[in-house]
Amino acid sequence: MPSLLHKILAPDSIAIIGASADPTKRGFKAMTGLLNDGYAGSIYPIHPRASEIMGIKAYPSVTALPAAADMALICTPANTIPSLLKQCGENGVKGAIILASGFGEVDEDGAQLEQEVLSAAQHAGVRLVGPNTSGMFNLHKKVNLLALDNVQAGDIGIISQSGNILLALALEAESNGHIGFSTYVGPGNQIDIGFADYLQYLGEEKNTRVATFYVEGFKDGRRFLDVARETSRFKPVVVYKSGSTEAGQKAASSHTGSLAGSYHMTVDLLRQVGVTVVENSDEILPVAEGLGLLQQAKGKKIAVLADGGGQATIASDRISEAGMELVELSDATRDALRDILFPQASLVNPIDVAGSTDANPGLLVDCMEILSNDDNVDIVFLVGMFGGYGIRFAKELQQEELNCANAIANLASMTDKPLVIYSLYAHVKPEPLERLRKADLPVYDSIEHAVKIMAALSERGEYLQQCSGVEQTIALTVIPECSQLFSQACDQNRDLFEFEAKSLLRSYGVDVPVELIIRQDADIKTTAETFGNTPLAMKVISKDILHKSDAGGVKLDIRGSEAMQQARLNILESCRQYNAEAEIEGVLVTPMARKGIEVIVGMSRDPIFGPVLMFGLGGIFVEILKDVAFRAIPLNRNDALSMIDQIKARKILEGTRGGAAIDKEALAELLLKVSAIVDAHPEISELDLNPVIAYDDGYAVVDARVIVDQG
Amino acid sequence: MPSLLHKILAPDSIAIIGASADPTKRGFKAMTGLLNDGYAGSIYPIHPRASEIMGIKAYPSVTALPAAADMALICTPANTIPSLLKQCGENGVKGAIILASGFGEVDEDGAQLEQEVLSAAQHAGVRLVGPNTSGMFNLHKKVNLLALDNVQAGDIGIISQSGNILLALALEAESNGHIGFSTYVGPGNQIDIGFADYLQYLGEEKNTRVATFYVEGFKDGRRFLDVARETSRFKPVVVYKSGSTEAGQKAASSHTGSLAGSYHMTVDLLRQVGVTVVENSDEILPVAEGLGLLQQAKGKKIAVLADGGGQATIASDRISEAGMELVELSDATRDALRDILFPQASLVNPIDVAGSTDANPGLLVDCMEILSNDDNVDIVFLVGMFGGYGIRFAKELQQEELNCANAIANLASMTDKPLVIYSLYAHVKPEPLERLRKADLPVYDSIEHAVKIMAALSERGEYLQQCSGVEQTIALTVIPECSQLFSQACDQNRDLFEFEAKSLLRSYGVDVPVELIIRQDADIKTTAETFGNTPLAMKVISKDILHKSDAGGVKLDIRGSEAMQQARLNILESCRQYNAEAEIEGVLVTPMARKGIEVIVGMSRDPIFGPVLMFGLGGIFVEILKDVAFRAIPLNRNDALSMIDQIKARKILEGTRGGAAIDKEALAELLLKVSAIVDAHPEISELDLNPVIAYDDGYAVVDARVIVDQG
Repeated sequence: MPSLLHKILAPDSIAIIGASADPTKRGFKAMTGLLNDGYAGSIYPIHPRASEIMGIKAYPSVTALPAAADMALICTPANTIPSLLKQCGENGVKGAIILASGFGEVDEDGAQLEQEVLSAAQHAGVRLVGPNTSGMFNLHKKVNLLALDNVQAGDIGIISQSGNILLALALEAESNGHIGFSTYVGPGNQIDIGFADYLQYLGEEKNTRVATFYVEGFKDGRRFLDVARETSRFKPVVVYKSGSTEAGQKAASSHTGSLAGSYHMTVDLLRQVGVTVVENSDEILPVAEGLGLLQQAKGKKIAVLADGGGQATIASDRISEAGMELVELSDATRDALRDILFPQASLVNPIDVAGSTDANPGLLVDCMEILSNDDNVDIVFLVGMFGGYGIRFAKELQQEELNCANAIANLASMTDKPLVIYSLYAHVKPEPLERLRKADLPVYDSIEHAVKIMAALSERGEYLQQCSGVEQTIALTVIPECSQLFSQACDQNRDLFEFEAKSLLRSYGVDVPVELIIRQDADIKTTAETFGNTPLAMKVISKDILHKSDAGGVKLDIRGSEAMQQARLNILESCRQYNAEAEIEGVLVTPMARKGIEVIVGMSRDPIFGPVLMFGLGGIFVEILKDVAFRAIPLNRNDALSMIDQIKARKILEGTRGGAAIDKEALAELLLKVSAIVDAHPEISELDLNPVIAYDDGYAVVDARVIVDQG
Repeated sequence: MPSLLHKILAPDSIAIIGASADPTKRGFKAMTGLLNDGYAGSIYPIHPRASEIMGIKAYPSVTALPAAADMALICTPANTIPSLLKQCGENGVKGAIILASGFGEVDEDGAQLEQEVLSAAQHAGVRLVGPNTSGMFNLHKKVNLLALDNVQAGDIGIISQSGNILLALALEAESNGHIGFSTYVGPGNQIDIGFADYLQYLGEEKNTRVATFYVEGFKDGRRFLDVARETSRFKPVVVYKSGSTEAGQKAASSHTGSLAGSYHMTVDLLRQVGVTVVENSDEILPVAEGLGLLQQAKGKKIAVLADGGGQATIASDRISEAGMELVELSDATRDALRDILFPQASLVNPIDVAGSTDANPGLLVDCMEILSNDDNVDIVFLVGMFGGYGIRFAKELQQEELNCANAIANLASMTDKPLVIYSLYAHVKPEPLERLRKADLPVYDSIEHAVKIMAALSERGEYLQQCSGVEQTIALTVIPECSQLFSQACDQNRDLFEFEAKSLLRSYGVDVPVELIIRQDADIKTTAETFGNTPLAMKVISKDILHKSDAGGVKLDIRGSEAMQQARLNILESCRQYNAEAEIEGVLVTPMARKGIEVIVGMSRDPIFGPVLMFGLGGIFVEILKDVAFRAIPLNRNDALSMIDQIKARKILEGTRGGAAIDKEALAELLLKVSAIVDAHPEISELDLNPVIAYDDGYAVVDARVIVDQG
């Protein structure tokens, strides 16, 4: 189903409410933009008194228009909006763009006005962009409501919660000379149309090759994930998310009134659905350009072709730091290179031609072709002076460089591997580089940026390969006994007891060690018989005692029935001292877990993104190093495996401290199971398995907490 | 004493050995560079047959010159060098620049030739730049031996181990339009003159405001540190060190034959002596420019002045991530801003003028002045559209922007705080921004880069403040008994026993818990009397058993004489089984250490940088997370405190896990003591205190290992 936004963002007729002949007004700017760019649709200036504006017949109100306008740009102040929307509805306007600020981003009164605006719009059947938006443009349709000069039509679609960020990107594109935009929208306060809708639109919009977002805060996070998962399969989606720090979150909130949410979690969830997350603002445009023009890479194995040792070294460092690999070239590749390069050339990746091309830059394309034919290579990275041989060495070389540029463009169209190009002459824009750019091959002026693009291409390539596999989410059939656990807990207005939480997990096939409950003295005998001389852990069961250790409700390393009896008495006494009112159900007894590696699995329901699973190592890793990974539920197998691989301390799981590697498959299985259980049981509002002990042959859930949604 | 290099790098006469009229030759390029730029000194082309080259009288050899040349540029192949150097010596040449490659960077034969070249030079009394260098320029002296076009004389001195990196920086400077260079040298293989010498030269050279280095590998690391410590007090020193990864180290080694050394350690040591370390190659020039032109900052408290919410948010994130602070503004500052800005302006840092300046950009300088007058503020950061108001809003505004630029330049000269400026119009170079640049105020085109500059300015400012304090290194008087420990160990061809190492430390005032040695049965009684019922640790003493635990040579938690006796027997038996030949001195007995936080202190002698101290948390933090800090010995108090603060897991030391904060002063004292001990005892080739247990009231050295230099 095509997005409803087409009529609004590619309109055939536009009403400008607040059109003006005063050059300082937005209504003037919008008119100028449309007229200068030669918009082919109908323009309806709306002005209370003027009969024409800038030579175009004006109307006193939208209701007086001779036909319905697809879209209305409203340039008037906040308090005028509700009644104007009513008129828009009467005229049949599909959508309105509201520039005014002074709404939810300001104060409570503003938030109330925002509600009025929304309900007026819904009543009138008019969709809303904004309010508090900088506006929009659709350059292919020649709808340039911002009246930006020198901005080219191109294939980057951009949604930016800051008008000045759009302006900065437009200026950067202008200085590049080969980057253009399709559609821009400032979503403003997103009271109606939100990021997810814009993404859907850009996904469908044929002039857009890459959908790019500057986001201060999502309102419709879960929907954005859903739409992104679909869209990213056929079109790159790039997001810069601000608020990576508390200071940035505060700034964003005073700017757009957005709640930024956890940056770390947001980034993990976006990557989970195939979005390319950009971490620095000066990388937004280079990465968008690269993803739009270059094909994704099969993997992370890079061949570097350099004509200078310094750049080869820097490229190697950045590639490694980005988690990519300087691939070992095949013997055939090295032989072929040896045939055409000087003997002193370094044929171990990074290739350093060591002067071979100084008088013969055309050799570079031969090398690139050889490298692109090596099966081990996923990306060919040309690093150095190309484009500047004619400037640096001898003017005559420029013709050879031009031929070489043509040949590189030709190679790019033949190979299925991306050719990424950094030139130290990129700033200077010599003709050979301009030719590459005209052939849709980006030329980067920073090794650092070029490496970010390679990382994005390989990440995207690997994601798409993964997607093409079978979807391996698990769906569970709800077990009635489990549902009963929740209704019972709900009736008693409590969360699940630990033993219930564990029994829930066990019912769905999670490995939870055997445990028994001692409710009365008589239970000790059977318990002792069951466990023999195994050392045991004993924990109080009481809905009134949350912090069992603090209450003296936990005893460890208990052996034999006598010790068990004593431990039970101690627990009961301590707990009664701790809280005389506490209802105590009994004592949970379970064998002490074997030594292994402590990990944590948690689930919470995020107000923006819905149910999210967290995984990390226990103790300081979570508490101090915040070394955790997040995924939106439901997870598939790749999500589960990748979240284990993602944590920085993964080496510990790989067994570097003398121990064996933990059983990653089993752990992934656990994550999938938990995801499925949460999916099957909306009654769970929070879940914590802490710790889970991971072994080289499985795992054991040692403690489990399930918070029940009482609503 | 002025550097010997002045004659060579600012020569009044130059011999060009291998001068040529063939435009593809380096000898031609050098001649062209000198002639085009109007070098005022004497040029002596040397050519076996030609009588003149490019209109200049040529000579068949250096010995035939009418006068001594200050410097000789040698453009001929590697094997010709030794005899040419002899001639140079006869002529009185002070220094030679050797372009030829084919030396130590290639193979063993090359390394041997390198030795021959060096000894010929020493014999002839000629200092050497290179070999394998791209050459040099001194633009103020009009010595442009690289014949680079479009490179301006300026105040950045640059030493780059890659000619193409120099070229890249020159092109970047050209595109900026306001950045120029003083002296460039490619140090090549540094067989004679090394980085430290060049730094000393740039420190003295009056045209150079900032000394900038691209380093693949130091050879004279310790001397570089010493010179940098002196130089950085009066002139900024900027280093980009390649080889941050193994891949980069390999690439560097095949490029210059340099051993890269540990990147992490190198960076720590450079920062210790006041060097600004740049981590990305595209930040080298912006940071050098900023440090050269702007004053250092008193601290890390930034005031952000923005005319767009998006940029304000991004700036806030980057500032926080860089460990700087968005300072809380004083009430007076906020009042003053409130007086001149629109009511909707956000007066909480980051300031967002919210349209106040759209028709009145001149207000920006008023705001900057207000902010610079706030005592809390160390740096004022202008972020946004300045320079583009005339383009974006109305042409008439450009005049006001020009006035504003003048006022900003004026403010910069009046205030002692740096004004850092990012503009989205920087790419476009509008006149108001050009005016700022002409007034020596850099304008950055990337928020990310601008923040790196601020970080560099505040790091430098804090370093200089620290330097101006009293130097607090400790010097120890060598205790004869301690020297005896070493001579004794040396005689027996062994390292110190643990008890000796501890006694050494104790002698110099390090807190080491009491310990006793059981050499024979009879010692047990006195030992038991001394320690009473305290739980004890017992460890074998044997020079033949390095890994005591593996040998069963360690028993923990022993109480009372009976248990002690048993433990001693067990230890002796296990150790004899482990190594029947082992000479066993006895068993060391010490009280079990109280629980605390395990840290590690280590010292090793680095081949490039000399004695280096390492500090880190124990266990996984060192082994897996590599979360350690390095400082060159001797340390001062600031070094000691800063190395504790530097580790990522410092929160653990600050007591976030429920415990109290550890006693940082005591730990710093320990580091200073160890530094002084190592300084006093060159006999120590390695030292390891692992673990040291840190408490809230001191520390305990639990194990100590001292490796003795047997040489």
